[in-house]
Order: sequence, then C-alpha cells, then structure tokens
Amino acid sequence: MIKVTFPDGAVREYQPGTSAMDVAKSISEGLAKKVLAANVNGEVWDATRPIYNDTTLKLITWDDKDGKATFWHSSAHLMAEAVEALYPGVKFWVGPSLETGGFYYDIDFGGKQVTEDDLRKLEAKMAELAKQSNPYIRKEISKADAVKYFEDKSDEYKLDLLSNLQDGGITFYTQGGFTDLCRGPHIPQTGLIKAIRLTNIAGAYWKGDEKNKQLTRLYGISFPNQKELDEYLHMLEEAKKRDHRKLGKELGIYTTNDDIGQGLILWMPNGTVIIEELEKLAKETEEDAGYKRVVTPHIAKENLYLTSGHLPYYADSMFPPMEMDGEKYYLKAMNCPHHHKIFDAEPKSYRQMPYRIAEYGTCYRYEQSGELFGLMRVRCLHMNDAHIYCTKEQFAQEFRAVNDMYLKYFKIFGIEKYVMRLSLHDPEKLGQKYVNEPELWLETEELVRNVLIESNIPFVEVKGEGAFYGPKIDVQIWSAIGREFTLATNQVDFAQPRRFNLSFTNQNNEPEIPLVIHRAPLGTHERFIGFLLEHYAGRFPLWLAPLQVKILPISDKFFPYSEDLLKKLRKAGIRAEIDDRNEKIGKKIRDTELMKVPYMLVIGEKEVNENKVAIRRHGKGDAGVKAVEDFIADAVAEIQEKRNEE
Amino acid sequence: MIKVTFPDGAVREYQPGTSAMDVAKSISEGLAKKVLAANVNGEVWDATRPIYNDTTLKLITWDDKDGKATFWHSSAHLMAEAVEALYPGVKFWVGPSLETGGFYYDIDFGGKQVTEDDLRKLEAKMAELAKQSNPYIRKEISKADAVKYFEDKSDEYKLDLLSNLQDGGITFYTQGGFTDLCRGPHIPQTGLIKAIRLTNIAGAYWKGDEKNKQLTRLYGISFPNQKELDEYLHMLEEAKKRDHRKLGKELGIYTTNDDIGQGLILWMPNGTVIIEELEKLAKETEEDAGYKRVVTPHIAKENLYLTSGHLPYYADSMFPPMEMDGEKYYLKAMNCPHHHKIFDAEPKSYRQMPYRIAEYGTCYRYEQSGELFGLMRVRCLHMNDAHIYCTKEQFAQEFRAVNDMYLKYFKIFGIEKYVMRLSLHDPEKLGQKYVNEPELWLETEELVRNVLIESNIPFVEVKGEGAFYGPKIDVQIWSAIGREFTLATNQVDFAQPRRFNLSFTNQNNEPEIPLVIHRAPLGTHERFIGFLLEHYAGRFPLWLAPLQVKILPISDKFFPYSEDLLKKLRKAGIRAEIDDRNEKIGKKIRDTELMKVPYMLVIGEKEVNENKVAIRRHGKGDAGVKAVEDFIADAVAEIQEKRNEE
Repeated sequence: MIKVTFPDGAVREYQPGTSAMDVAKSISEGLAKKVLAANVNGEVWDATRPIYNDTTLKLITWDDKDGKATFWHSSAHLMAEAVEALYPGVKFWVGPSLETGGFYYDIDFGGKQVTEDDLRKLEAKMAELAKQSNPYIRKEISKADAVKYFEDKSDEYKLDLLSNLQDGGITFYTQGGFTDLCRGPHIPQTGLIKAIRLTNIAGAYWKGDEKNKQLTRLYGISFPNQKELDEYLHMLEEAKKRDHRKLGKELGIYTTNDDIGQGLILWMPNGTVIIEELEKLAKETEEDAGYKRVVTPHIAKENLYLTSGHLPYYADSMFPPMEMDGEKYYLKAMNCPHHHKIFDAEPKSYRQMPYRIAEYGTCYRYEQSGELFGLMRVRCLHMNDAHIYCTKEQFAQEFRAVNDMYLKYFKIFGIEKYVMRLSLHDPEKLGQKYVNEPELWLETEELVRNVLIESNIPFVEVKGEGAFYGPKIDVQIWSAIGREFTLATNQVDFAQPRRFNLSFTNQNNEPEIPLVIHRAPLGTHERFIGFLLEHYAGRFPLWLAPLQVKILPISDKFFPYSEDLLKKLRKAGIRAEIDDRNEKIGKKIRDTELMKVPYMLVIGEKEVNENKVAIRRHGKGDAGVKAVEDFIADAVAEIQEKRNEE
Repeated sequence: MIKVTFPDGAVREYQPGTSAMDVAKSISEGLAKKVLAANVNGEVWDATRPIYNDTTLKLITWDDKDGKATFWHSSAHLMAEAVEALYPGVKFWVGPSLETGGFYYDIDFGGKQVTEDDLRKLEAKMAELAKQSNPYIRKEISKADAVKYFEDKSDEYKLDLLSNLQDGGITFYTQGGFTDLCRGPHIPQTGLIKAIRLTNIAGAYWKGDEKNKQLTRLYGISFPNQKELDEYLHMLEEAKKRDHRKLGKELGIYTTNDDIGQGLILWMPNGTVIIEELEKLAKETEEDAGYKRVVTPHIAKENLYLTSGHLPYYADSMFPPMEMDGEKYYLKAMNCPHHHKIFDAEPKSYRQMPYRIAEYGTCYRYEQSGELFGLMRVRCLHMNDAHIYCTKEQFAQEFRAVNDMYLKYFKIFGIEKYVMRLSLHDPEKLGQKYVNEPELWLETEELVRNVLIESNIPFVEVKGEGAFYGPKIDVQIWSAIGREFTLATNQVDFAQPRRFNLSFTNQNNEPEIPLVIHRAPLGTHERFIGFLLEHYAGRFPLWLAPLQVKILPISDKFFPYSEDLLKKLRKAGIRAEIDDRNEKIGKKIRDTELMKVPYMLVIGEKEVNENKVAIRRHGKGDAGVKAVEDFIADAVAEIQEKRNEE
C-alpha cells in the first residue's frame, strides 16, 4: 500500500497504481467530475496517471490556476485535432496555455490563409470532437521511436523539438485521432470542454526569429460551461471599450512620440490634472501619517548600485550607463539608495525613529521594446514611493499602518476586490536571486506573516517571488469589470541597511541597524492611471475629472452670464470651461459627453433670469435646475468627499 | 579736424590726436577726474590715448562695468609693482580683473611662501606707490624688441606669452618702475586707486595644467574711495554668514553625496518643504494666468535634439548618451523639445491659442566638475519652466504678461533691485552660435524691445548674448545684502517652431507657424533657493519656513496641553512640532533659535490655565502672550499673505 497525504494533513492508504481520479471517485463522484489534474508531490500530473509511491496529493479543479492552465493546454490539443481534421497535412509547432487566459497553437498551414470563417468552422469541429469525450492518453516513448514517428510524417518542427530532449522523459499524448509530442499534463477527456471561442489569428515567426518562416498563430479560449464563456466575452467587449490606450488618447490623457522613445509617456494637460490630484491625495495622506518629503536626482554613480547590490544583479533591468569624468552614471531604477543617503546625511537617534521619507520619484527601467504596452509596461515610472526606517520593535506597527493606507486608498477608489500575495524567498536561490542572509529571511518573513494574520487581511503565500532584499507583499486588485492588476508592493528590507551601513543611536547609546520598509500604495502613475481609465471607463469621479464642469450657453446672448458663472466656479476651485463656439446646444452636449465631463451646465433665458443652472450629468442626462450657489456647494462637497458616482 | 559722436547723438569736432581725457576736460574738470577709460568706436581704450580718426566716443567711469574692469586690471599692475619692489627677482604670468570683482596676479616667487603678513606689507607698499600718482604709459613695441627685453630678464613666462602674439599689435605698459607686456587698457594714473585690500593667497598651476609648476595667485580688490571698500568688506562678511552652503547644511535644506555624484542635489525634508511651497505658488500663479500643466520624461532619443538643433551645437553642455536598442538616448538639458511634441500631439486651431504649458521640469546639464558650486552651479536643475505658443498678434501681450509675472514674484520675495538685460544676437556668429535666420532675429528683437519700452521696464541691451534660437531677457536680481544673481530668462523662439513643423489653423483655415516664449520666472529651485538662503539669511518668511512653529513646554507636565495645541496648529495647516526633550527651557529656546524657526510657543502653568501661548519671534525674542485662537488666526493670515517680516 502507498500513503497519500492530503492538503489538510489527513493520510490515507491506497493500492500502488491508484490514480488521483481513483482517489477522487473514492471520495465522491461529484468531485471526480470536477477533477482536471492533480498535484503529486509538488508536480502537476494527469489525474488518470497511476501513482506508485507515497505522495502528497492535491486534487486540481477549474478553481485552481493550474487547473485552468491544464484545461486550456488540452484545449490547444483539441484545436490541433480539429485543424488536422479540416486541413490535412498541416504541421504544428507549440501550443501552450496563456497566463492571461486561453491558449494558442503555432501552425504551418502550408501557405493557406486562415480566415475568420475558418475559425468558426474550427470551433464547430472542436465542439463535435469534444462531444466524443475522448480521453487524453499519455504514453512514454523512446527518443528513437519518437524521432521515427515524426520522420515518417516529415515533421521538421517536432523533430526540432525532439533534438533538444533527452531520452527517458519523452511522452506522447493522444486524444481521438490526434497525437502530439507533449510533456503534459492534460485533463481526463475532451468532454469537459463545453464552451469554446477562437479569438484571434496572428503571424508568428518560427522560434520568434524574423529570419525564419512565419507560422500562423491561432488564439482561443475555452470554459467548462457556456455561462463562463459568455461572461468572459462580455468582459472582453467591455475591456475593449475601456481600453486605456483608446481612452487615454480620446480624453487627452497621454501620448507618446517616436523621437522621444517607446515607453516614455508624455502626460498631456488632462492626464497631468489626474497626476496632480493623485499626488495631492498621497501628500496629504502621507503627511497625516507622519512622513516627510524629499527630492532626489534621477541619476547616480555606479558605486551607489554596487553598494545596494542592484549592480550587477539587476543590471539587465537598468538603462545603460553614461560615462562621464571617468565615472559611470546610471539612471535610477529605484529610489531607495538615494533615500538611504538622505537618512545617512545626518546622525539619527531613536528619538527620530521611525523616520519616514516619501517622494513621487521618477525611475527608469529597461523593458524589452516588444513588452512595452500603453501605460501598463513603460520605461519611465512615477512611483508613489516612500521608505520607512524603523526599529524591530516598531516594525509591526509601521507595516500595519502601511497596509491600512492601502485599504484607505481602496475605499477611495471603489476597489472592492483585492488580494495580498506574500512573496517569500527561495532558499535554493540565495546569493543569486536573493541576498544571501538565510536567517534574516526567515525572521522577517515571520514578522510580515504575523502582521497579516493579526490584521485579518486575506493573503496567499508564494515561495520564490520575494524581492532581492527581503520578503514583499504584492497587492493584486480587480477593476470594475473584473480584470486583475498588480498594483503595488510593500517590502521589508533587512539587507540594504547593512550594505549602506545605516544606523541610529538607540536608547542605550549604541549604534543599531534599522529595518527598512519600501512601500508604494498607489504604485506608479502610469499603471494606476491606466487601471483607473479602465476601472471608471474614463468617467472619472468629480474630484479626479480633468475638466469638472462645462458651461454650455445656448447662444452668445448668454456669454456674459456664463463668464460670470465661470469665475464663480473657478473661485470655488472647480475646473470649468465655457463652450463658446457658435454651435447648436445639441452639438455642444454631444461633444462634451464624448469628453466625459461630469457636469454640463446649460445656460439659456430662464437660467439667466433666475440666476440658476440647468444641470446635465454625464451619461445620465437631465439632473434638474439649481441655484448657482447650491450647485457650487454640492459640487464642492462631492469633490471634498471624493465621492464615487452612485 | 575729426568728428566725435557722443552717445546722445551729438557730434563735435576736435584736433586729430585729441584724447578722450582732453575731450572730458573740454567738458568739465570734474568729469575728467572721474574718467577711467573710453569706448572708442566700440573698443575700450586708455583715456589718454590720442585719437586720429572720426569716432563714436563714450567716456567710461567707475559706474561702468568696463570702468571697474579697467580699474581692477590697473590695480593688478600696481600690485605687481609693489611685489617687484619688495621681492626683487619674482616673475609674473598674467594679472586680469575678475567678473565677480577685483583682480589677481599669478606670480613665481622663486620658492618663497607668501603669508598674510606679506599681503599687509604689499597693501602698504601699493598705497605708497598709488600716492605717487604715476601715469600708466602705453608703448607700442616690435616683437623683436619685446622678446629681447624679456630675454634680458630671463623671463620665460612673458616670453611664452609673446610667442603667441603677432608682430604689430604688441604693447608695453609702464607705471612708476614697473613695465609689463599688456594689451591694456589702463586708467590714467595710480592716484585714482584710493582703497586696496589683498584678499587671498592661492596656488595656481601655470596655464592651469597640474603637470606645470605651481605659481602663487594673489587676489585683491580696490576702490576709488575708502567708503566703498568698507561697504564691500561688510558685504563679504555678511555673505560669509549667509553662505547658502553653510546655511543649507545647518538648516537641513540639502546635501550631496560622492556616491551619487557632484552637482546632484539631494533635497532634505526641510528643503523639500520650500520646494513644495515654491511649486504651489508657481502652480497657482500659472493657473490664474491660464497655463495648463504637463509632465514629460527626462530622456529622449538623439533625433529629438537633432531636430531642435541642440545637437550638435549644445552637445558639450549635455550628459553623454546612453546607447540602447541601437539608439542614443540623452538626458534632457531643456524641456522645450518635449513640450513641442505635446503641442504637436493634437491638431491646434486659433481658438486654442495662446497655448501655455508649464512643468517644473528637471533637466541635466554637464558642467565641469571644477565649476560646480553649492546650489549655484549644479548638474541637475528643477526648472520653473513653461512654453507659450502664440500668434504674432498675441506675442506682445503674452510677453508683457510674463514680465508682469516676474514683477509679481519680486514683490512676494521682497526683491527690490533688479535689471532686465535684453540679449541680442551677433550677426557675425549666425549659423554658429545663433540659428541662421537674420531677418527673424531683427524682427523679434524689435518686438521684445517694444514690449520693454511700452511696459516702462528698465533694461540694458547686450549684443551677442542671445539664446541659440532667439533673443532673450536675462533677469538680474540683487539679494538683501546687495549681491547680484542671474535669476532667470524670458526667451523668444522663432526657430524651433519651424524646425519642429509646429502649426495651428488660423481664422482663414490656413496653417500658421506659432511663436514660442520660453520662460522661467523662478529660475531653478537650486539657484533660487540658494539665493533665498542668502537673501533671508536663512530666516525664511513664515509661509516658506520649513518648520513654522515650535512648541516648547517648560516641563513634561505641560505635554498634554502641548499635544492638543499641536493638533490645533496642524489642523490649521501650520507646520509645527513639540520639543519634548527633557531639557531646560533656555536650552530649548537656544536650539530652536539655531534652526531659525519663526515662532516659539513657550508653554507653562499660566498658559495652560488661561488657554494661551507665550510667543517668541525668532531673532526678536518675547512677542507677548495671546489666546491660542488668536495666535492661530494671526499666523494663518501671515502665511496667506506671504508676509515678509517687517
């Protein structure tokens, strides 16, 4: 008998050769229908693969990340089966699942142009094949036999894959009439795939090298039921409407320019208003929380980053150096070393701890040009940065205060779903990916975990995703349409204070090394404003709206009243403009709606006579008539309370 | 007879061979006594040199920049005469006047160490020689005779100078027993030098090359009367106390660090408060004036600066490029090209003109490390920048509005003395130092001149100091102790809009090229805060003071009241702290005085019982007792009015 240990610690005995699916069935048939794969001793396996040794076992379903990945990868095989059925003679390169959802397969169609129409045919064929509920059958095969198989098919692509594989671990997977070289794992059978959408056709050079032949990449997504596919397609459609690049251009938020460079955002006047409002919020929040502000340059000499350890470890993510006066200067990719020098500029005593310094610092990071994407992946980042230098005794309280600040911001921006990921080090990568301080890693990881537990904050732990110099919390948030964003991090640092010889004089008059917390609750302007564009669909709450009120006089007769009204609004701190074009009121309203200005004030005879304004709310239309003073008071209150629209 | 044209346009006739001094005497003996040199057809000449041709003539006195330069250069010769008298056998290199005032002479003392005591002896000797009222006598000499003269004296230094001179223009000057190779000009006679102070002894490598012998550089300053010397020495002493580097450190304003790099300022929390207040003022002022704000990255590709023309012309002042993805990226040394790209990102119509965009942009400029100086000469500059794109018709009003903004700021900061220098192009350097657009230069220079005349702003014109792309106004201001600073510039640009193909659609629906005004009334944070430190001697007005109020409880019994008071002050937006150390009140007051905190509130039994505060004003002591609410109201008013202390 073999011993199987379950995630809750329970241990049960089974016959050798029992599969995870057998185990599931032994628990309940309902569970068995949901099982897509299994985690066996830390590896993801086919649920149907026999187990011969003692193991830990976790059954994997659609709710798991690994479950979805297996499901989509199996869907790629199903698509390949359909392709081979409809277009015999095609050859296949690779067909992985995607982190962002779905799958693709790179295919040599031998010159055929694939059309949208083909996608619909393939979807139908896939549905037909899925209904056959064919099992995914795993077969270990010798390299020689595998080579022979693909030589017989003259398949240069799979032969190329094989040439890089060692004999011994090679497997084929077959479902229905389709066999593929594949390391797996796969779901039990095709019948689990209930809803399929092939989403896109693209060209992809073989091995990503533009000197090679261009293959056809077919993208798709699949679900275990139609409802989830419908929701997904709705979300996609909504996300397309809310695409931050589209809205960013339409609303005059940002632009880029080839002569300046990719990934370098030029913030237009409307985007800059949002930046200023976010910075104002951050400054006020941080001032209340006892932070002081600093301003540091964007460059530093090589030696600073040798001291911090960012060089050479992090060099690939930094811009190349400028050589000057026989020294190398680097654009900063992070603000911390500069802040450490400010901490260190004057001697510190325990009376000054915690010492919290904040800066909306601009950092430069090298990203491959192919990975740049709108505001989400850029090379110049304005970071809501701060560093808290504290004693070990102060750490828990400081770390908790930072987490509270996150929660405060989530409330302001109407962010309802979030998760904190506690990223830990990987003991096997100490000295490479992580500073080589094994005990300090364990100690500080424990400190952070305790804070999260004590604060009742839901979190998941992830091994091997800590920062270079200590454990961190990554904050994941979901936009109003349910898309996930990585917002910001909250990191502990026990390494840099040592490297920089930072110290304060403690109450016993002895030098003591502080801990450092790196934190950036609002992330970067780039990513956060990109998120907000999608989250609000460009309909910013009043306090953030670049233009808050547009005055629309029905004719030029009402310009003087409008000018007077403009002055009153501006005096109250409201961002307002007049549409003084010689256009019909309908056109004025339509144009203002397009710019998503929260309030339109239509001014005609009646309003002038009664000293009132006729209010239209963006997207909602007529919102009644108010006295000028009442409108101003209401708008000011809405701004001050940072109200999210009901 | 020769015709002499005076600055006022008057023309008089004189005998050929008449000197400027003869002309001065023909006007009045009083004037003649003041004449130090003369501008003859655009060149500065000895006042005593005979004139043989028609000429323009301007008599130069101590009030002229050229008069001071001539006076100080002649004083250098007088110092050399004294040195030769007291230390025979010494040899001389060069002895110029200094732009910043005074003169020096580099001298080979043959190994003798010069002491402060020697300086006093030399001063006495100079005074003695000055009393002899020896004339400075100019003599044209052939190169052969000049070489023979210095060969006889074995003077390798002057022989080296001679080796670079052409025969024909070589002159000697003699006063008393001292003869020097010198192109002049000089003042009429030594008796004009009434007050002398030798200020400093330094080492200076011959020709500035550290492989050469080190010479002794003696610095001095001189005046036409004792009163001016006394005032100068007082100003020096005061400037030393107000040295922005000393105050910057003592008050926690800024620091620098070798690992970050020279000339790269780290703004400490106290300095950052001042930055934030200045930016707030600038943003409010600019918003009222109809500017919009933008944010741009600190780098751009080479092509941007090839388009602007900064490359290759300005390359020496820029940081070296970073090479990445086969492209060269440069740190920006100016914000304008980035702003042009923002102007150009969306089509513009006449309805959007003038288009004014502002940014406190951070620029990087390469300065030789030897020229870096505190906050005054740095490599990273935070610039109060903005660009106004306007039509020709709008130009005068826009340019005037910018000048008005300067005047507004001068009032706020209590800057009473200022001069605007209108810097023009030099037609001979078109295509090198200046863009090659001769007609546009003349046209825009005339536009600017007219604005200054119409606004009644006092200004001087300087040929050959314009910016690369158009005429500019340099604003010189004087600090409270009378030291001159170059604050900022206001520039017209007719070249870049063409280079960047900028245009707007005019009322006739045709594309039209805008003019651009570059302006930075508050200059850079670096230079302006450096200036303010000296101007206010570190005693910032309340609105700018990093810490505005310090609460000084007499004992810990009064901590709760103090904490409560602190909350009230902070709620009113006042930057306040408590000195909660266990120290005597005297010590607390002394320490707070050192940090130049404007208000100290001493809290004892009486204050707590009566809900009052005992006020001390920095540098003035006891300022009475007030109810808490009254103190807060008064302080808030002082802040809001940006009151400079009476």
